[in-house]
Amino acid sequence: MSLLVVGSVALDSVETPFGKANEVLGGSATFFAASASNLTSVQVVGVVGNDYPVEKLEPLKKRGVDLSGIEKAEGRSFRWRGRYRHDLNVAETLETHLGVFSNFSPKIPAQFRKAPFVFLGNIDPRLQLDVLTQVERPKLVACDTMNFWIESRRPDVLKLLERVDCITLNDAEARQLTEQNNLVKAAQWIMKQGPSLVIIKKGEHGAFMFTKGTVFFAPAYPLEEVFDPTGAGDSFAGGFMGYLAKSGDIGDASLRRAVIFGSAMGSFAVEKFSIERLLEVTPAQLSARVADFRKLVAFEEEL
Amino acid sequence: MSLLVVGSVALDSVETPFGKANEVLGGSATFFAASASNLTSVQVVGVVGNDYPVEKLEPLKKRGVDLSGIEKAEGRSFRWRGRYRHDLNVAETLETHLGVFSNFSPKIPAQFRKAPFVFLGNIDPRLQLDVLTQVERPKLVACDTMNFWIESRRPDVLKLLERVDCITLNDAEARQLTEQNNLVKAAQWIMKQGPSLVIIKKGEHGAFMFTKGTVFFAPAYPLEEVFDPTGAGDSFAGGFMGYLAKSGDIGDASLRRAVIFGSAMGSFAVEKFSIERLLEVTPAQLSARVADFRKLVAFEEEL
Repeated sequence: MSLLVVGSVALDSVETPFGKANEVLGGSATFFAASASNLTSVQVVGVVGNDYPVEKLEPLKKRGVDLSGIEKAEGRSFRWRGRYRHDLNVAETLETHLGVFSNFSPKIPAQFRKAPFVFLGNIDPRLQLDVLTQVERPKLVACDTMNFWIESRRPDVLKLLERVDCITLNDAEARQLTEQNNLVKAAQWIMKQGPSLVIIKKGEHGAFMFTKGTVFFAPAYPLEEVFDPTGAGDSFAGGFMGYLAKSGDIGDASLRRAVIFGSAMGSFAVEKFSIERLLEVTPAQLSARVADFRKLVAFEEEL
Repeated sequence: MSLLVVGSVALDSVETPFGKANEVLGGSATFFAASASNLTSVQVVGVVGNDYPVEKLEPLKKRGVDLSGIEKAEGRSFRWRGRYRHDLNVAETLETHLGVFSNFSPKIPAQFRKAPFVFLGNIDPRLQLDVLTQVERPKLVACDTMNFWIESRRPDVLKLLERVDCITLNDAEARQLTEQNNLVKAAQWIMKQGPSLVIIKKGEHGAFMFTKGTVFFAPAYPLEEVFDPTGAGDSFAGGFMGYLAKSGDIGDASLRRAVIFGSAMGSFAVEKFSIERLLEVTPAQLSARVADFRKLVAFEEEL
């Protein structure tokens, strides 16, 4: 089943303790699509400026990502410059230039409107709500958000929560949104607003998925080298939604596997700059990593 | 099989967002013994001052904890006063009075020297080394340590590592000891010094167990109320070692279950002040929590 993502398509310049990358592919929709394309066909809606090196998106197209919803606007592309020090959990933003992204108003092409799985990447919640008026009864809608919107557009974020099935956010954002320090209570608070699924991402500490009455936890994969954490959250979301769209099943067992596929894709994403590693993952590597996740947490209930 | 613990027996005064406790039972050996006594018989070596309310230890005795190795010395007992704010991961120490503990020199009674399982609680590594000269070929020796000893007694900590099978320490301590930010590399560094088992505790983020060639991860139990985190680490160690001593098996499957029992006991410990909750755990509650840990991480590798 097809999977629609609406989000940013950017150019990232990143410095980590291990190296530097200049103006490489970035943005929530880009990471999401690169990740999900390992599992299913993806449709992207976004905007780039007329300076965007669109030929660099070619590898995504070859993998079945439909880029026809990426609008080319007059002006400069969205650029982000950031740095990670030794604590790779903390990104230090050096520059953000929104460019054409500041006037982004997503238009969902007719051929994308029936997508059964929809991911609303981290953009203005008013735009996320607007996308929902353009799509036709999707089977599952998930959204992401961030501290900036929770603070500046709280009523819109709350309105959005009434309209989505799932939200992914990090632990600090969950605490900020709900004013609950305890994550179990934070998830319950969010579910009361609407979503039946809440995924709280804790970076190197793994991710929780809460549903009414169940909790599932997936650790982060214990990598020896985290090369560049940029895009790990969107790659997680891409693996999660990609798995669900592929299976078409949103029952508990499938959701749990989807979280593991999300965690696996997140762990690949951080092994190289930009979307490089996501484009190289083989089906065998993905299966092996899923099997590794199983070994990582496996124990016998009785001996 | 019997389990020997050497550590502190203290009086704690604790303030959390949920309440206050004054001069309640505390110390590494106390939490460890209360926890492990849910699984096996425990022998304690420690010291208290002549002001210690030893009658309060009576419930431990009733559960098969042998307190005959607790020496009563002239002077004041070890007291700790601390506070937790809303971030329950961070203890703020307000006062520490070592009292008789500052001259503690553990003497292992003859009847304890053949204990097959030995836990060296967080005390001066010179004393931990000294205990090892007094015991007779234990099957498994584990130790704990802390930032203070890593900084002030580094050569002794390294000597200790050559002599133990297992070390439990938290993530910050692992990074400090090894000067490695990455926990996988930190564990490998520690294993090179001697221990074949390294357990890195991450508080609310769970715990890793590393052995040569394997990694196991147990999440922390997602509690809605963490009442008082004091002693969670020692309760974890008590559950871990208690399970191993009970089963007598130190193979991979048993070690994994031991980590889960440790995590379960840690999760009980934080539900009330001091060792209160550890003394109330029923076998049915413990089995139910172990089953909950399984549900928390369970997923199908194939659907």
